[in-house]
Amino acid sequence: MPAAAAAASLVLFAPSRSSSSSPRTLRRPSLLPLRRATVAPSRPRIPRLVAVRANVAIEKETPEEERPETFLRAADGHHGAASASVRARFERMIREVQDEVCAAIEAADGGGKFKEDVWSRPGGGGGISRVLQDGGVWEKAGVNVSVVYGVMPPEAYRAAKGEAVSGNGNSSVKAGPVPFFAAGISSVLHPKNPFAPTLHFNYRYFETDATKDAPGAPRQWWFGGGTDFTPAYIFEEDVKHFHRVQKEACDKFDPSFYPRFKKWCDDYFFIKHRGERRGLGGIFFDDLNDYDQEMLLAFSTECARSVVGAYVPIIERRKDTPFTEQHKAWQQLRRGRYVEFNLVYDRGTTFGLKTGGRIESILVSLPLTARWEYDHKPEEGSEEWKLLDACINPKEWI
Amino acid sequence: MPAAAAAASLVLFAPSRSSSSSPRTLRRPSLLPLRRATVAPSRPRIPRLVAVRANVAIEKETPEEERPETFLRAADGHHGAASASVRARFERMIREVQDEVCAAIEAADGGGKFKEDVWSRPGGGGGISRVLQDGGVWEKAGVNVSVVYGVMPPEAYRAAKGEAVSGNGNSSVKAGPVPFFAAGISSVLHPKNPFAPTLHFNYRYFETDATKDAPGAPRQWWFGGGTDFTPAYIFEEDVKHFHRVQKEACDKFDPSFYPRFKKWCDDYFFIKHRGERRGLGGIFFDDLNDYDQEMLLAFSTECARSVVGAYVPIIERRKDTPFTEQHKAWQQLRRGRYVEFNLVYDRGTTFGLKTGGRIESILVSLPLTARWEYDHKPEEGSEEWKLLDACINPKEWI
Repeated sequence: MPAAAAAASLVLFAPSRSSSSSPRTLRRPSLLPLRRATVAPSRPRIPRLVAVRANVAIEKETPEEERPETFLRAADGHHGAASASVRARFERMIREVQDEVCAAIEAADGGGKFKEDVWSRPGGGGGISRVLQDGGVWEKAGVNVSVVYGVMPPEAYRAAKGEAVSGNGNSSVKAGPVPFFAAGISSVLHPKNPFAPTLHFNYRYFETDATKDAPGAPRQWWFGGGTDFTPAYIFEEDVKHFHRVQKEACDKFDPSFYPRFKKWCDDYFFIKHRGERRGLGGIFFDDLNDYDQEMLLAFSTECARSVVGAYVPIIERRKDTPFTEQHKAWQQLRRGRYVEFNLVYDRGTTFGLKTGGRIESILVSLPLTARWEYDHKPEEGSEEWKLLDACINPKEWI
Repeated sequence: MPAAAAAASLVLFAPSRSSSSSPRTLRRPSLLPLRRATVAPSRPRIPRLVAVRANVAIEKETPEEERPETFLRAADGHHGAASASVRARFERMIREVQDEVCAAIEAADGGGKFKEDVWSRPGGGGGISRVLQDGGVWEKAGVNVSVVYGVMPPEAYRAAKGEAVSGNGNSSVKAGPVPFFAAGISSVLHPKNPFAPTLHFNYRYFETDATKDAPGAPRQWWFGGGTDFTPAYIFEEDVKHFHRVQKEACDKFDPSFYPRFKKWCDDYFFIKHRGERRGLGGIFFDDLNDYDQEMLLAFSTECARSVVGAYVPIIERRKDTPFTEQHKAWQQLRRGRYVEFNLVYDRGTTFGLKTGGRIESILVSLPLTARWEYDHKPEEGSEEWKLLDACINPKEWI
């Protein structure tokens, strides 16, 4: 697994805060980790490294009662020159966007409130998960930020950035484990009304430190992310509006971005075994570092800040549309496809599941309810058929 | 991926009967493969080898209007000495068990009828998928048999059976692709009532031919399978009855079988990222060839023939138990876990998804409906908590 995928997942989830997911503890008769905890447990927690099959080590997290001002280590933090670092500015941005999106969702929902879980790690890093479940408009809405300090073996680092390392004449240096930093925001919003689309967005920043054993090795960084949406029914004005907002955000930076990242999105969210995409796309990019770093920080910020304007007006138009049981069943079938994509293909999810991440944060992306019917085929020409056609044959919407 | 996994999956599913799952055809504007087909399409179908990432090649299948007497090639078929071969006897057994189980399910359902899909492959092999959906008692019940003739590269063969090949002094022979035969029955039965358990069973037989380039290489064979069940609530008498039937089937052959295959089952149906099993186990085994072949054929037969007696009495007791919305929601959450196991860990499913198998046959194992709630924790001591405890800490039921 390339380090890029590690970065993708590490900012998509926050590692487990209990040790209940460790197979070694399973045979104990106690069900302690399953108790309902209304306050943070008071027993002392011993920080430990999570042993991960995917070759990335991160510390176990500790629940927190309050949000800290920053999850960055002191040297990366909010004071002095450090506060102007890309790490610090990216963390500030994703936390502001989290507040902004949650406020907009709560306002549009008209009743549901986000439940918040906060945690930190002894060596720095942490996260905030916010979930609104069974609200007025949304079935399940999750908006998570996380900051991770970890270590990856040099092979994983080289696998992702090999040409940069060897290209700089450092390939003969015997490098030790590579410390890395990752931060990101990730969100999936599943509305109840079958005419209101699901939205997903995720923006993340990844950076490596120079290795201790090979101080001459260059520091690497890259950006990843995107915004895509998944209706069960096509309203052309909605799809056009959504894609237009993505294009406008892209065009402010480079006219090549929208066509390139739109195609990347269509290619990425592909359910191979179905031969169809999970939705109607948007933009997606990963491992992006071949542009000016400040430009890409500004671009990620622009994209993340565009989410509310791209999505909420569509929800306002569709949230109260009358629907039948059949409309709902079709939405549930498409939710089943969403589950298939996330559990089988999504790099962040599959990596997270294999590395002992905080399961509830990783799987908050799954819908509250989903459905599978044997050999379901929409009638040719029906609205359901049109949606499926667009998932099979991606279109240019603008 | 070891060849054993290939065998497991090849009998779990039947390859896709349309080419719609090939990414190469997606950009065509036609939605032909999605049309509702009430009769088998009359346009000619060109057999082709399925290009598979997992290094196993099988031919594309053709829909059939009627069940053939056998899916075996003529040389393996029902006539003369061939009819006494293990291949022929195993095929007859799984087809009889399919009839038997479907008849028992329809009788207990009291209304639902199985829909049947039959297909064959030009070079031999084929399958019958039967699905009962939204019946009186069952939400979704699938019972599939399939017979596969395929070819695997020598590396895959050696990976699975390496010691047998090299142990016989043939490791220096440069072997070509290895033809194989696989047949199996696979079934998942999801009832509606939350007090009625889900049942899964799967029995399969795998055999290789001697390779053309290395005719001296030994022919290999093995058996795999098991029966396990997944209630949402524990009724001790049900669990004990189910396990007792498994033990009785095992004890007829070897007293070591039940303890060994019971543990194998607990270990296999483990959702690693949750630290819990999907259900309360049963028996499971794979790659089994270190016993007499006739004995293992008789053992697989005994197990498959025990399914109705192990399961249907439990359904009869529970199918009409009154339940609340909360009981149903908990069942749906456990169905979500079933989806997680099948899509993330099950070897047959994950292999099938990656190799262009017939998706509807592979994913018939998924429930009609499922549910995911953020951070759901049953109250300590509740019936839900007891089920979860038993999924985390496997018990000896008899």
